Amino acid sequence: MNSKKDIQTANVSSSATTAASTTAISPSRQENYPEWYQEVIKAADLAEQSPARGCMVIKPWGYGIWENIQHVLNQRFKETGHQNAYFPLFIPKSFLEKEAEHVEGFAKECAVVTHHRLEKGEDGGLVPAGPLSEPYIVRPTSETIIGAMFAKWVRSHRDLPLLINQWANVVRWEMRTRLFLRTTEFLWQEGHTAHASEAEAREETLKMLDVYTDFCEQYLAIPIVRGEKSEGERFPGAVNTYSLEPMMQDRKALQAGTSHFLGQNFARASDIKYLDQDGSEKFAWTTSWGVSTRLIGALIMTHADDNGMVVPPRVAPTHIVIMPMTHKPGTEAKVMEYCHSLQKDLQACKYNIEGQTQAQSQLQVHLDTRDLRGGEKMWSWIKKGVPICIEIGPRDVDAGAVYFYRRDQQPGKKTSMPRMEFINNASAILEEMQHNFFENARKFLCANTHTFTNKDEFYTFFTPKNASQTEIHGGFALAHFCGDPTVEEKLKQDLNVTVRCIPFNDARSPIADLMRNLRNVDSCLNNCLFTGKASKGIALFAKAY
Amino acid sequence: MNSKKDIQTANVSSSATTAASTTAISPSRQENYPEWYQEVIKAADLAEQSPARGCMVIKPWGYGIWENIQHVLNQRFKETGHQNAYFPLFIPKSFLEKEAEHVEGFAKECAVVTHHRLEKGEDGGLVPAGPLSEPYIVRPTSETIIGAMFAKWVRSHRDLPLLINQWANVVRWEMRTRLFLRTTEFLWQEGHTAHASEAEAREETLKMLDVYTDFCEQYLAIPIVRGEKSEGERFPGAVNTYSLEPMMQDRKALQAGTSHFLGQNFARASDIKYLDQDGSEKFAWTTSWGVSTRLIGALIMTHADDNGMVVPPRVAPTHIVIMPMTHKPGTEAKVMEYCHSLQKDLQACKYNIEGQTQAQSQLQVHLDTRDLRGGEKMWSWIKKGVPICIEIGPRDVDAGAVYFYRRDQQPGKKTSMPRMEFINNASAILEEMQHNFFENARKFLCANTHTFTNKDEFYTFFTPKNASQTEIHGGFALAHFCGDPTVEEKLKQDLNVTVRCIPFNDARSPIADLMRNLRNVDSCLNNCLFTGKASKGIALFAKAY
Repeated sequence: MNSKKDIQTANVSSSATTAASTTAISPSRQENYPEWYQEVIKAADLAEQSPARGCMVIKPWGYGIWENIQHVLNQRFKETGHQNAYFPLFIPKSFLEKEAEHVEGFAKECAVVTHHRLEKGEDGGLVPAGPLSEPYIVRPTSETIIGAMFAKWVRSHRDLPLLINQWANVVRWEMRTRLFLRTTEFLWQEGHTAHASEAEAREETLKMLDVYTDFCEQYLAIPIVRGEKSEGERFPGAVNTYSLEPMMQDRKALQAGTSHFLGQNFARASDIKYLDQDGSEKFAWTTSWGVSTRLIGALIMTHADDNGMVVPPRVAPTHIVIMPMTHKPGTEAKVMEYCHSLQKDLQACKYNIEGQTQAQSQLQVHLDTRDLRGGEKMWSWIKKGVPICIEIGPRDVDAGAVYFYRRDQQPGKKTSMPRMEFINNASAILEEMQHNFFENARKFLCANTHTFTNKDEFYTFFTPKNASQTEIHGGFALAHFCGDPTVEEKLKQDLNVTVRCIPFNDARSPIADLMRNLRNVDSCLNNCLFTGKASKGIALFAKAY
Repeated sequence: MNSKKDIQTANVSSSATTAASTTAISPSRQENYPEWYQEVIKAADLAEQSPARGCMVIKPWGYGIWENIQHVLNQRFKETGHQNAYFPLFIPKSFLEKEAEHVEGFAKECAVVTHHRLEKGEDGGLVPAGPLSEPYIVRPTSETIIGAMFAKWVRSHRDLPLLINQWANVVRWEMRTRLFLRTTEFLWQEGHTAHASEAEAREETLKMLDVYTDFCEQYLAIPIVRGEKSEGERFPGAVNTYSLEPMMQDRKALQAGTSHFLGQNFARASDIKYLDQDGSEKFAWTTSWGVSTRLIGALIMTHADDNGMVVPPRVAPTHIVIMPMTHKPGTEAKVMEYCHSLQKDLQACKYNIEGQTQAQSQLQVHLDTRDLRGGEKMWSWIKKGVPICIEIGPRDVDAGAVYFYRRDQQPGKKTSMPRMEFINNASAILEEMQHNFFENARKFLCANTHTFTNKDEFYTFFTPKNASQTEIHGGFALAHFCGDPTVEEKLKQDLNVTVRCIPFNDARSPIADLMRNLRNVDSCLNNCLFTGKASKGIALFAKAY
């Protein structure tokens, strides 16, 4: 292990400075990370469990974040030539049976529709009736049904490339669910494309991985390690699967998005053929790629702290909340007038996102006039993770000032600024916060990623010291790996650790330096950490969601 | 009947002038309206049937229209204080059983999920396994599951009003399906609100009906007759149902949207209670309202003609298509350069929608460089209903001109205009077209709406002359009605005619004059047309989708 010291000193978050004082979320991340996660979602009013087993209700604040994610990604998809369409929720059973590996992967746990009617039963209750001749599966993913349509639409090389995206709900029957991370139903987008050449399909696969990476880093402020999945972790039916693997604050990895090169597997299964320029009929090359509401789980576990949710400004449904402090008798009218005028002026401001000209260009400003105590009101917004909270009392009105709190600083720390200065700088402050959130996460990722040339140290790294279920330990481990699936199986059994990906040799990666160092160690150490056999490259190992 | 002559002369559309020449869609509306409808959808590439029975695939051009519908309505919903959220796809069977009338209405034909797994069967195929202890219903509408959540969220009068909207897919197992009009799965939005007072809930119900009416008239260019549904046509469980009832080109009505005042029925069923200011616990008053992808069916049947689809500019995914005519040797470079520059200049233009400051503010301009004959290319866009098609050949480049076709004029009629003049006027031309589409539809509606004081004439009106299945006949009939459900039953059996609604006494309605005339006839004729009993008001009768 190269930097043992770092591990002990690296804390779960940049705001650990508040640990001594009381925090809004109990338990804290250190005390019980999984419970902390649930409590943040509750305190921020992002989502909750529904009466339908394992299905969530996404509440307005959570859905507002999802709408912003959709908005930005939708623009990126259109800029890269994709069109949206909509395909059926139901997949006939026989379609799932077409691609052998795909069946294995997806037929296991899915919602099966077997009847199309309810009738009054003997006890007066409703009973299923009208059995279907062929059961339908509620889509767990849509390769098979979209493939069947592509087969109809593609005739000639002129019909290619076919670049389609769908925003939809999907269902995978999960035994153990956690809000946003693993739910029976979730919302996602799934891109499906068909190409005339392998090279073009491969280029598309990586292009969309780039789109996801840029989006996660620039909008969600989540630094991304990415690479190719090992054989055992591939999408069922894919030739290559690539994934985004950010680190959460408990140092586990979360697969945040995937892009698959499907080769001709699904084209063969669905009969997607085209007449080429040379007059011969050929199978198309296809890809698929997707991200889901899981990204909101990634947001929470990257940025939220012991005081609740933290929403990076670029995806925040509300950027600024104004709270009038009107308890002093006789001041209400002038405070309210000042607040309304401030709201109006701020709403007229552009939110200038660096390097972007169009996206989400107005400041979203909310005036909170609820009849609550000031402290309670302020904390409700801190817990929701609104970037900036403004309190306006009579003295601020008299001074022509804005008294505000930034979510990237400690609660209690507030700043007063002349009104015009704040209005002129609001957008820049938000961008500075966006930058800070990314930098904090990047430093955390780097501090908790280590290279290994000694197997015992690797095992020590992934073993909690107190054998506690909730102890935060481990991190990302980089080591040379021979690619043997039995090694992966053993690591899973011994440590619950998996190969997250074979990271790209990527200059922009947050772990580029660590990768380079490991490549440059003595060549005798360049063999597989576990078998001593020839390395197929450096792999990223971690516990994961 | 007041104006028999009008009926005979009123034609199915304003573009009937093209009837003599060849048209792109066969059969024409007059020849076979239902088949014409299917052919328009095919020719415009809007949607198609999928392998899942009764479920449609919405193709990019159709989905682009839906995205614009969503975009504008979403803004209106937010302006009226609503927030988006997402609720589960699955409804436990017991929830549907809670509201007695609701069960009757929706339990009959629905998709029932009974298993959560597929396993290899004896023959090697997959068979349903893992039976659910309680079956789930794929939501046909979400009152019951949203009601259960509202019951958790509402505690005090301070939690009210609760104003929520959801964009989602829903499933109703339909025996006979038609693309967009009636499909097993469709996309929609469903608003659900809870209020502390009956008056406020009633106001909300009508406010959202207004939002729908304005949207249909101003964006879809569809003139709306609206009013209250009769008892037999009410939403199952509602106290009052209001609907939008535009006239299609075959003179039938299409229910294009509904808004329901649910009273306290669902609040009682779901236990949505709040502590009022007076300290007592009360049931909330709820509403629900929705429009769906059926609106695209309404668009087609209001505006499309015998040459294909017609998309009103305000909801068109593409406003202008530029087609370079490069067949003359040696001219390609300069034509392409001119086209690219024209596209760039037009894309920089705002599309100024009268009375709107924000919505959909850029001109959407597509450059079609496909390797197709000019005529074929032009017709492909006419059939899609793109508002403006521009052809640019070398002579246009030399003249600095734009040679264009407007979809509200006859094919073949093209106009040449100096480049700058066209660029400066593009937005105004689109707005003029938008106005023309609405006016054509309004005139058609008025010409085919009649008042009746004689029952025989009413029966003649709704009886085709040639007993042909596809003869276009009838229209909207206004008559005094006593409200007796047995009359409705008889009219349905005799003529397949239903009470569409009791139209509002609405000065803005396209049929306001006809309504006034009928109210003003001799008071002896102010009795029910069918029973002679006292009238409860003027009802709108029509055949309907």
